[in-house]
Amino acid sequence: MQEWKKNIRQVVPYVPGEQPKEANVIKLNTNENPYPPSPKVKEQCAKICAKTEELRLYPDPTAGMLVEAIAKYKGLDSNQVFVGVGSDDVLAMAFLTFFNSEKPIFFPDITYSFYDVWADLFKIPYDKKPLDENFMIKKDDYYWKNGGVVFPNPNAPTGVLMPLDEIEDIISHNQDVIVIVDEAYVDFGGHSAQQLLSKYENLLVVQTFSKSRSMAGMRIGYAMGSAELIKALNDVKYSFNSYTMNRPSILLGTASVEDDAYFKETVEKIIHTREWFKAEMRKLGFTFPDSQANFLFASHPDVPAKEIFEAARANNIYVRYFDKPRINNYLRITIGTDEEMKKFLKFLTSFLKSQK
Amino acid sequence: MQEWKKNIRQVVPYVPGEQPKEANVIKLNTNENPYPPSPKVKEQCAKICAKTEELRLYPDPTAGMLVEAIAKYKGLDSNQVFVGVGSDDVLAMAFLTFFNSEKPIFFPDITYSFYDVWADLFKIPYDKKPLDENFMIKKDDYYWKNGGVVFPNPNAPTGVLMPLDEIEDIISHNQDVIVIVDEAYVDFGGHSAQQLLSKYENLLVVQTFSKSRSMAGMRIGYAMGSAELIKALNDVKYSFNSYTMNRPSILLGTASVEDDAYFKETVEKIIHTREWFKAEMRKLGFTFPDSQANFLFASHPDVPAKEIFEAARANNIYVRYFDKPRINNYLRITIGTDEEMKKFLKFLTSFLKSQK
Repeated sequence: MQEWKKNIRQVVPYVPGEQPKEANVIKLNTNENPYPPSPKVKEQCAKICAKTEELRLYPDPTAGMLVEAIAKYKGLDSNQVFVGVGSDDVLAMAFLTFFNSEKPIFFPDITYSFYDVWADLFKIPYDKKPLDENFMIKKDDYYWKNGGVVFPNPNAPTGVLMPLDEIEDIISHNQDVIVIVDEAYVDFGGHSAQQLLSKYENLLVVQTFSKSRSMAGMRIGYAMGSAELIKALNDVKYSFNSYTMNRPSILLGTASVEDDAYFKETVEKIIHTREWFKAEMRKLGFTFPDSQANFLFASHPDVPAKEIFEAARANNIYVRYFDKPRINNYLRITIGTDEEMKKFLKFLTSFLKSQK
Repeated sequence: MQEWKKNIRQVVPYVPGEQPKEANVIKLNTNENPYPPSPKVKEQCAKICAKTEELRLYPDPTAGMLVEAIAKYKGLDSNQVFVGVGSDDVLAMAFLTFFNSEKPIFFPDITYSFYDVWADLFKIPYDKKPLDENFMIKKDDYYWKNGGVVFPNPNAPTGVLMPLDEIEDIISHNQDVIVIVDEAYVDFGGHSAQQLLSKYENLLVVQTFSKSRSMAGMRIGYAMGSAELIKALNDVKYSFNSYTMNRPSILLGTASVEDDAYFKETVEKIIHTREWFKAEMRKLGFTFPDSQANFLFASHPDVPAKEIFEAARANNIYVRYFDKPRINNYLRITIGTDEEMKKFLKFLTSFLKSQK
């Protein structure tokens, strides 16, 4: 082995969901929103193109316009909002900024697959706390001494929502460390821990434009917290890369926030489709924890999830399958349009029949 | 002090150059290109706006279209190119990926101000090697055992270009570590170390779209190296954030690469302006190392740089001043259009006269 190879950081890279290039695929595998972004985003896009000469200039390193739009929308001060290149960037910066204890950080065993990847990357010790048999977080697992706590709410890939009083219980038992609530899916029926911010200075709430705002392609995420946490995040961000948000992200993100009616309308449509889809899935014999996200985490008593996954794929319908302990008989199915879900249900009906 | 504050990473954040919001400012402080991006970028922008519904989808995590365009343009394989959110993102990832030795990394004392910021952020030991009295890198300083080497060529903020044989000399003395040549400014008259890639698997060459391609606002940087180095960078990138490049970056970046004629034309214009500006500055009594970048690093024997900086600012002309040892009597002046430089020279002429 050449000497220089010894100093290369060894990581097990995260494998993202497939991004098929074929046009005729029904893509229910990466929890994208089936509806386009707000028409205001299109209008703002045209303005950017009319002035491409501005692309020669660095963006505002504070992304001030976007930060202020989010703060105003959320009823916060602008020093309580941090923006990044998707919530993955925000969360990675938060791990790097806040998890510097010798003690392990705690997160669920079944959860967003990036947490252990970031912990490994930054050499943060961690301890995974098993969900119960119904995929619920057991709050008393989080009462022990730790270096920080992070969990999604609703949890991913289960879709299970934790009530706000239980979240507060975890935070109140962890006032010596930073607690991160990752709310990528909260707009689809959850209650945000944002309302606890005034009570807990050590709480960070992370949200994203990738799901409910139909802007996964723009990479915009944000964190809300006390001015002190947000300043610490910004200090690390400025040390890493002062200009993370490009001009289109700042401008198009702001346009999205300013169109609340459209946002609410599309979110409602997805919730409506999800509830109808749940009923149809039950009729087909699927079981699943009750999802409050834009996906369903479903298992069938008779047919292995992996077989359904592969057969769906062969029929140009992509869903997500995780070959991991405890969840390797589940499919994570994104809620698309009614039409897409009908096609998927039609495929399932005929596939299940063929397996009898 | 609350207990949770103890685990927050302490950093001294980088302070970026000012981004004034006033329209009538002559902005010569952040080495932006005075010319707009290629007209092909505007054309591609219109195509993005025609299909904003695609923004609901995640971007290609490999940014394959852009990687292939750069590889083709540079005559490399696509597994030899890594892209990131500006060269700052690429360099930060490279520090995190490649500088994991107990031994200090080496870089010049006068250089890009982010190197020690990243080293501090990632707790990498470092040793700064002083430039000589003419701001030249002394290559034999880099012959000692180290954990890696990084330097810009041309160097910043001096603009001094190191000949390729000296760069090769440094690399050949450092075959046990990764050597990073940061070529943010190389298109303005330098020779890229890219031609050494076939000889040295431990060499990484970093370039950017922010300067010569007039796209600072888009945040696009890239690294070229052996397939092994690029794979290691991608593994870390996927561990950090799979989707760093948003859709507009990938599409507009590709459009820029495909318009080589425009690229060469604007670079030539800037070089022409720079050479004329050097002659004018000499007439005013300024001294400066011979710059091969899109800026001049200049000092006046009679008037302190700080005073010129402040007076220029009061006249709505922004240049860069670093209040640091050895360089606190220098101004870093970006090469703008002929017209902008004429206005700056006019200001200088009258200001210098007023100081006599």
